[in-house]
Amino acid sequence: MVVQVEPKPAQQIGDDMHQLVQRLYPICRSITGDGVRETLRILREFVPLEVHEVPTGTEVFDWTVPDEWNIRDAWIADLDGRRVVDFRRSNLHVVSYSEPVKARLSLEELRPHLHALDEHPDWVPYRTSYYNRSWGFCLSRRELDALTEPQYDVCIDSSLRPGALTFGELVIPGSQPDEYIISTHVCHPSLANDNLSGIAVSVFLARELSKQPRRFTYRFLYVPGTIGSITWLARNRERLGTVRGGMSLVCLGDAPPLTYKRSLPGTSELDRAAAHVLRHRREPGDVIDYFPFGYDERQFNSPGIRIPFGSLMRGRHGRFPEYHTSADNLAFVSAGQLEDSLDACLAILTALDQDRAYRNLAPFGEPQLGRRGIYRAIGGSADPGELATTMLWVLALSDGRQSLLDIAERAQSPFDLVYRAARILEDSALLRTV
Amino acid sequence: MVVQVEPKPAQQIGDDMHQLVQRLYPICRSITGDGVRETLRILREFVPLEVHEVPTGTEVFDWTVPDEWNIRDAWIADLDGRRVVDFRRSNLHVVSYSEPVKARLSLEELRPHLHALDEHPDWVPYRTSYYNRSWGFCLSRRELDALTEPQYDVCIDSSLRPGALTFGELVIPGSQPDEYIISTHVCHPSLANDNLSGIAVSVFLARELSKQPRRFTYRFLYVPGTIGSITWLARNRERLGTVRGGMSLVCLGDAPPLTYKRSLPGTSELDRAAAHVLRHRREPGDVIDYFPFGYDERQFNSPGIRIPFGSLMRGRHGRFPEYHTSADNLAFVSAGQLEDSLDACLAILTALDQDRAYRNLAPFGEPQLGRRGIYRAIGGSADPGELATTMLWVLALSDGRQSLLDIAERAQSPFDLVYRAARILEDSALLRTV
Amino acid sequence: MVVQVEPKPAQQIGDDMHQLVQRLYPICRSITGDGVRETLRILREFVPLEVHEVPTGTEVFDWTVPDEWNIRDAWIADLDGRRVVDFRRSNLHVVSYSEPVKARLSLEELRPHLHALDEHPDWVPYRTSYYNRSWGFCLSRRELDALTEPQYDVCIDSSLRPGALTFGELVIPGSQPDEYIISTHVCHPSLANDNLSGIAVSVFLARELSKQPRRFTYRFLYVPGTIGSITWLARNRERLGTVRGGMSLVCLGDAPPLTYKRSLPGTSELDRAAAHVLRHRREPGDVIDYFPFGYDERQFNSPGIRIPFGSLMRGRHGRFPEYHTSADNLAFVSAGQLEDSLDACLAILTALDQDRAYRNLAPFGEPQLGRRGIYRAIGGSADPGELATTMLWVLALSDGRQSLLDIAERAQSPFDLVYRAARILEDSALLRTV
Repeated sequence: MVVQVEPKPAQQIGDDMHQLVQRLYPICRSITGDGVRETLRILREFVPLEVHEVPTGTEVFDWTVPDEWNIRDAWIADLDGRRVVDFRRSNLHVVSYSEPVKARLSLEELRPHLHALDEHPDWVPYRTSYYNRSWGFCLSRRELDALTEPQYDVCIDSSLRPGALTFGELVIPGSQPDEYIISTHVCHPSLANDNLSGIAVSVFLARELSKQPRRFTYRFLYVPGTIGSITWLARNRERLGTVRGGMSLVCLGDAPPLTYKRSLPGTSELDRAAAHVLRHRREPGDVIDYFPFGYDERQFNSPGIRIPFGSLMRGRHGRFPEYHTSADNLAFVSAGQLEDSLDACLAILTALDQDRAYRNLAPFGEPQLGRRGIYRAIGGSADPGELATTMLWVLALSDGRQSLLDIAERAQSPFDLVYRAARILEDSALLRTV
Repeated sequence: MVVQVEPKPAQQIGDDMHQLVQRLYPICRSITGDGVRETLRILREFVPLEVHEVPTGTEVFDWTVPDEWNIRDAWIADLDGRRVVDFRRSNLHVVSYSEPVKARLSLEELRPHLHALDEHPDWVPYRTSYYNRSWGFCLSRRELDALTEPQYDVCIDSSLRPGALTFGELVIPGSQPDEYIISTHVCHPSLANDNLSGIAVSVFLARELSKQPRRFTYRFLYVPGTIGSITWLARNRERLGTVRGGMSLVCLGDAPPLTYKRSLPGTSELDRAAAHVLRHRREPGDVIDYFPFGYDERQFNSPGIRIPFGSLMRGRHGRFPEYHTSADNLAFVSAGQLEDSLDACLAILTALDQDRAYRNLAPFGEPQLGRRGIYRAIGGSADPGELATTMLWVLALSDGRQSLLDIAERAQSPFDLVYRAARILEDSALLRTV
Repeated sequence: MVVQVEPKPAQQIGDDMHQLVQRLYPICRSITGDGVRETLRILREFVPLEVHEVPTGTEVFDWTVPDEWNIRDAWIADLDGRRVVDFRRSNLHVVSYSEPVKARLSLEELRPHLHALDEHPDWVPYRTSYYNRSWGFCLSRRELDALTEPQYDVCIDSSLRPGALTFGELVIPGSQPDEYIISTHVCHPSLANDNLSGIAVSVFLARELSKQPRRFTYRFLYVPGTIGSITWLARNRERLGTVRGGMSLVCLGDAPPLTYKRSLPGTSELDRAAAHVLRHRREPGDVIDYFPFGYDERQFNSPGIRIPFGSLMRGRHGRFPEYHTSADNLAFVSAGQLEDSLDACLAILTALDQDRAYRNLAPFGEPQLGRRGIYRAIGGSADPGELATTMLWVLALSDGRQSLLDIAERAQSPFDLVYRAARILEDSALLRTV
């Protein structure tokens, strides 16, 4: 099912992810069109994802798959033909889903179609108009102020025609059919943190997960925002009964510490695993409550679906100045941060996957660990050691109801230490899974 | 049912309330007698309350309606006939429910009948002896110290005779029989904050409520403290099944911020509405836990009744120095504070009345707000605006179980914004009440 | 059942406890052997405890009662016969359960058998090797550094032979068969705080409890740590159904404030009583969460037993520098601290025993306390007094479900005041136990 790869030294994975971000950066993605297709084609070099095409006009819940948008060129030029705004320099310059236009306009006629940022005069904003036919250009405040000619020629060489919505899907099966969904949006053009960092971490996470034993099945989605996850949900309603939860991976390459945004109920197994792992990392992360804006978690948590869906990020949706501007560029994301994000994702899913409840097989008082060779021989000193005390925690709480994660939380110990203690006790026939 | 009045500019209502306080201030009220009758007669100029008379001797739960008390005059005079303490200067000078007395007493015989305050030598305390036959005078510490004659003539021209306990009641019906009770005590003589401010706010609240659409029925009680609410409860036991809760209005004209004292369970719908409204006001109020002393909430929350009953106040029962002294006078309460209190009461009852659970009619993913014209056309910027994000909250949580107040609490938004968002969604056929 | 003693002035009980500690201090106790027997014999001078002997080889859950250990003498001597380490100076010098040895060894051969503390060069550590046959000496760092001879004669005149495990048990019956267990370990040699302080407080607590009326039955155990409580549990499984909980008493003579360690569930009646009493003491104590190391609470809380078992202590297990060293000597514990600990124990068990739910017999509104002579005659002042407000709390909450401790917690009043208020109301026929 999954491309077999050689194990790579950890420090190289960050660089590999950053190189993937670099390759994807110039492509002009939108919610439909060839940009998404080209992106998924490159991802297939890394993981064997399946590509789906859903025709324009397909009804998906309250929505309809829109016309496919493609663009070849776009510019604003003065009457001498000099391009003052040029799509070839940055695909952010065109409002995504702009309808085609070719006209000579007065500056006054043009102005309502121009978007700039007052607070950051050198940055170009990212703007979209998916469901409202219009056109527009984005440019920096300085570029806007430099437009002083009375007339300009304007061209957007785009097409809006029946076609398809394209998305990618990858299933990594586990020993159980119960599954978790990892979702990433793939509809943003040249924005490195939002969404290329998420794509890169998701792809390398899928590769790492495919190498280790798994209880759960993991489904990776690479979908355009909103309409993409709605489309997947509408086509997979019969499948949702085995979906236990999921999370979206977004903005994972910039500098802030990790933040996990809880699912709407806030108490799912994934919520607990993520909060636990982030609390015990060398650089602890934040956990914040759900709110119904942001990324694809909105669709999964909606009242008719109610799959508990969290989100992992560094910079938070709409909260960092570079958000949806040309400053979210390749320099804004780093190999080290991408790798740290990947490491956290793996730790969260590993804890989730390894968590289970055990039953203490010698439950009357403490069992005699010493005669099994798993306790110190000389008694009296205050501290029997971290592993021994963790074994005592596991024995004390393993009544078949409390899981290793419950125990880790109560013992305030990292999950992997609790898991290690449980495995030693299981090997000594003192513990059995329920 | 209710006197129809012309809408008045807000800034005038505070003055109107203060004028009502001024008219009621000189009347000598007690738990029975003509002072209460005269007070209720004046209130009937504003709202059409019904006046009830319950005969002396009526058994009401553990209590019996006492003899009716009336007083015409009272004084302490020196042997030259000069009144050194005079009821005509302030009705606080006589211990309420004093039995009649006319005697010449030595200062030593008189002294046990005199009450003064050491901490505030110029203030006259307010004292009562309802259920223990005795008599007494209240005077300032300075007045007490000036009593140096060996003998004084003492007169209390009062009567204690079978009569009635008088209380007022006003029902403002809603579309449902379920009701909330607003209770105010009317047994204090010349004390402006405790209880005239509560009476004034209650009367004007009834007027305002009667002008707006209502789901619930609101019952306003104007009763003597303790014995009055016990009497009402004893005569209305069959009615209590439709009473969902209530609150007492007390001490609402002085300077401190508003305080809501929770009902005994602390989790009633009114408790939640009051806490929410106070938290979101420009000057936020405090919310404190229930305790079984204070005002009429004690009777409604008692084990045999268990109607969740809160209390709204500014200065807290027994906690401000002017409490139950002559310093709780007309200057101690202001039109502005009365009006602010009325405004909070209205906001609390409006939130309570408008709160309900909705069901999202497009619950699979987010509905497409844009094509309904209730979402911005151009996407990409971080913030879709306060109203739009509130609509997303309402859609995300409206599963038929969570009410608008639940949503407002989770979204940390003021109730009226959440209500507005819900009404827009209801108008767009995206929401239906359960 | 219990020795009848004359009431003693409180200030003397602390001294009596300290004298008991002094008498027990020189005895060389271990988990079996004559040291425990001699200790229990002395305790029988104070309370009529029953002594049990369980033969070596008896299987008790996952454990087996070990050989009995006794020791007469032990030393390390230079070749001139001068004892450089001598059991007769302190029984801490021999690792507990050391097998017999008599040999001439080089310093290099001897060194692995020597235990000292780097951090405290003058203190002798306490070490054990119960379940792993070996031998060893404990000595101060300075004594260790002074061993410079090439060879030493070594002797441990001990025996390890089939015998018995000895423990003491005392039952103080109440009016109900439901019981609480108070457990103390009796296996430590010359260590004053850990465990002699616990023994002394436990014995005097038993004496005090036996003098007062009791609802519950109290069972006092004096057992060697771990194997002792496991042995008791294994022999009394049929009895556990009436055991509601318990606590271990340990380290109660040193200076730190009291700490109550909660049972594993953390919500038992004893947990609540202990937390309440410690919060309301003049010097408030701490309450900490359960952890599965420490003392006999580990056995009672284990998954197969699940009797909620707390622990009361001053210095915490393994957390004070003197723990398990020769510095835990007679000067380390004081009569005053022992007495304060006893006082807290009694207050906790008294609250536990007196706690019950009442039903308000005049539940409709407040009853008229005045006519029953239990409320002030003159009204109006802010504060009716601590006892009166506590009576109002008891009346307001006594619906047959909430107990006096529930009420004390909600009213933030000490239990004994709430109990006193309840008794007054019961005497006035306003309250009846459920």
